[in-house]
Amino acid sequence: MSVTYAQGFSATGLAAGISSTPGKLDLALVVNNGPLDVAAGVFTSNRFCAAPVQWSREVVKGGHAAAIVVNSGCANACTGEEGLAQSRETAEAFGKLLGVSSGHVLVGSTGLIGELLPLNHVISGVKKGFPQVEATAEAGVLASQAIMTTDTQPKRVQIDGDGYKLGGMVKGSGMIAPQLATMICVLTTDAVVTPERAQQAIKDATSTSFDRIDVDGCMSTNDTVVLLASGASGTTPDMGEFTENVRSACAQLARKIVGDGEGSSHDIRVTVTAASSEEAALACARSVAASNLFKCAVAGNDPNWGRIVSSIGTVPPSVAPYDSNKVTVDVNGIRVCDGGMPGQSRELVDMSPREVHVDIALNAGTAEGTIWTDDLTHEYVHINSDYES
Amino acid sequence: MSVTYAQGFSATGLAAGISSTPGKLDLALVVNNGPLDVAAGVFTSNRFCAAPVQWSREVVKGGHAAAIVVNSGCANACTGEEGLAQSRETAEAFGKLLGVSSGHVLVGSTGLIGELLPLNHVISGVKKGFPQVEATAEAGVLASQAIMTTDTQPKRVQIDGDGYKLGGMVKGSGMIAPQLATMICVLTTDAVVTPERAQQAIKDATSTSFDRIDVDGCMSTNDTVVLLASGASGTTPDMGEFTENVRSACAQLARKIVGDGEGSSHDIRVTVTAASSEEAALACARSVAASNLFKCAVAGNDPNWGRIVSSIGTVPPSVAPYDSNKVTVDVNGIRVCDGGMPGQSRELVDMSPREVHVDIALNAGTAEGTIWTDDLTHEYVHINSDYES
Repeated sequence: MSVTYAQGFSATGLAAGISSTPGKLDLALVVNNGPLDVAAGVFTSNRFCAAPVQWSREVVKGGHAAAIVVNSGCANACTGEEGLAQSRETAEAFGKLLGVSSGHVLVGSTGLIGELLPLNHVISGVKKGFPQVEATAEAGVLASQAIMTTDTQPKRVQIDGDGYKLGGMVKGSGMIAPQLATMICVLTTDAVVTPERAQQAIKDATSTSFDRIDVDGCMSTNDTVVLLASGASGTTPDMGEFTENVRSACAQLARKIVGDGEGSSHDIRVTVTAASSEEAALACARSVAASNLFKCAVAGNDPNWGRIVSSIGTVPPSVAPYDSNKVTVDVNGIRVCDGGMPGQSRELVDMSPREVHVDIALNAGTAEGTIWTDDLTHEYVHINSDYES
Repeated sequence: MSVTYAQGFSATGLAAGISSTPGKLDLALVVNNGPLDVAAGVFTSNRFCAAPVQWSREVVKGGHAAAIVVNSGCANACTGEEGLAQSRETAEAFGKLLGVSSGHVLVGSTGLIGELLPLNHVISGVKKGFPQVEATAEAGVLASQAIMTTDTQPKRVQIDGDGYKLGGMVKGSGMIAPQLATMICVLTTDAVVTPERAQQAIKDATSTSFDRIDVDGCMSTNDTVVLLASGASGTTPDMGEFTENVRSACAQLARKIVGDGEGSSHDIRVTVTAASSEEAALACARSVAASNLFKCAVAGNDPNWGRIVSSIGTVPPSVAPYDSNKVTVDVNGIRVCDGGMPGQSRELVDMSPREVHVDIALNAGTAEGTIWTDDLTHEYVHINSDYES
């Protein structure tokens, strides 16, 4: 169902000739039919943020948008003034069709960095696609397919709130999330919310979902998460319940990104418990999730806990106080490291499931935190050394 | 020549049955015959530092050592009190043969984390090897071979100072340096230096050599660099010249580690110039050197500058102030990114040399810094998913 699950939204996806793969769906349109036109979003903190991010960040500041257009195949990043003009012209063309100002149209792009859009293809695609937008489930599916790049499958979510609905789509393929122009998420809801409440909800939701996957929490040049609210349900939700549903939608989509990790053979959950603070727990979990050696070991079905403890050993005591002689590590339920020393035999660990659970107890407090990542396989190297060809 | 190049040192390397590979040289002995017995060293800052590191750090505090014994095949890391007792017993056995206290014997171990040493093999190896130590070039070669693990070749250095000599050996294989129990370096000199001066020289030298290679500057559980001085030349060197020679020895060995990067097909020099500070330059260079995406691109002979700028875009402005619209990137002499935008065609870049030179100008100051790293290949994944088998 994706972005058309909530009332008040229509969408489509079409092949506009932007992608280098002939016939690939590469342009998604999502229209908010109201009655509200609330928009909120969070964007990459990368200093080389792409033109569409610069454009959409300004739109979201106003709190209102009638639609979003997302293309795959070209990130329009590192393209200077000309790239920004392209984002503006795309918004203007779509806004003209919608009868709204360009300042009420969001844009998103994903693909290779450093190339300008084939703008005539984008604009002719918008013109061709606009008459096709529908509020059907099929239309939402098309949109979710049109934003894919190296994704092996589209990623969608739908949630039933208390009197309203929430739906969404995301593109992004596992391990490349922090570095390439990868992650674009569009959420739609028919709840009645103000721009301020929508912004607060999306900010809270992403901080504990998309920010908890992958290598280092750094966003790419194009990462974008937007929430559009039509108000069509007539329901004004409880803010706590609403935020939790947005968070759940983001978490489900984030989990799907890890599950579609490029070339990955395992999804790895790294949970650090008994930490002095959540920050300490997350710092330790991120250090493990960033270890190529550990990721390679998991690809080889090796629960190499030495690579786990040597990773958390690099976290400064000022960030995560703990005593290395009190740390325990469980991999898939087997305590392979006990008190900083070898525990049960690693041969007892069953590494055959796709999900690998790493549970690290620092025994220095009561806080905890989880980061999801993927293993590092031959296929990952293959995909990322051939990306351009 | 390695550790026997300077006068006053004898060494050997032998197969003691520690490694799982039958017949592999896995025990190196280096003896300082004096007249001085000066020892200095720097060690990993990893909080799970190995037993031999804990032992040798205390020895170095005293400033004197008559010998060092290094084994490959087992790191004796995460082995608790029993592991520390093993390091002490090794030093005691060697000290007894040398006629010195165990507190004047350094130990080093490298290999898999989380396993105790086969102590009887280590001690019988010390007893068997001690009568074999010689001051010959061949003996230095044997020692450099005995400390190898995944290294494809031994790594040695020799430098002629002003009236004295400096030699050394290192083991460590490129990309795994920051995470596994990998890097052990032994330097020997016949210069006349005090423990304080030796310590200052080794500290200064490593900060601009071993600390400038690899992914994130984090040391493993076992990383060790020691400098032994015999004084046999009778020459008291100028401290500036001496430190520069120690630095040069370390830099040459560090470069050899990168050149022997596991499965690597390119050595990558990332230099950041025109930065506001050296810290800023190094932070940007490290961010590029840590990017799996960029490393994969280089493996595929793709000068993907988008992955370079998106990496430096993650460095906070508080660390490295710069304007993304003023950044230039040259790869092997071709300016592929100019002012944050596409420059010359990436197809002009010749990626066939083993060395790849990435030159990033921030245009925000006059400071600079360089980090060396390797590309990320199928072979790297293969080696590191099979390490235990």
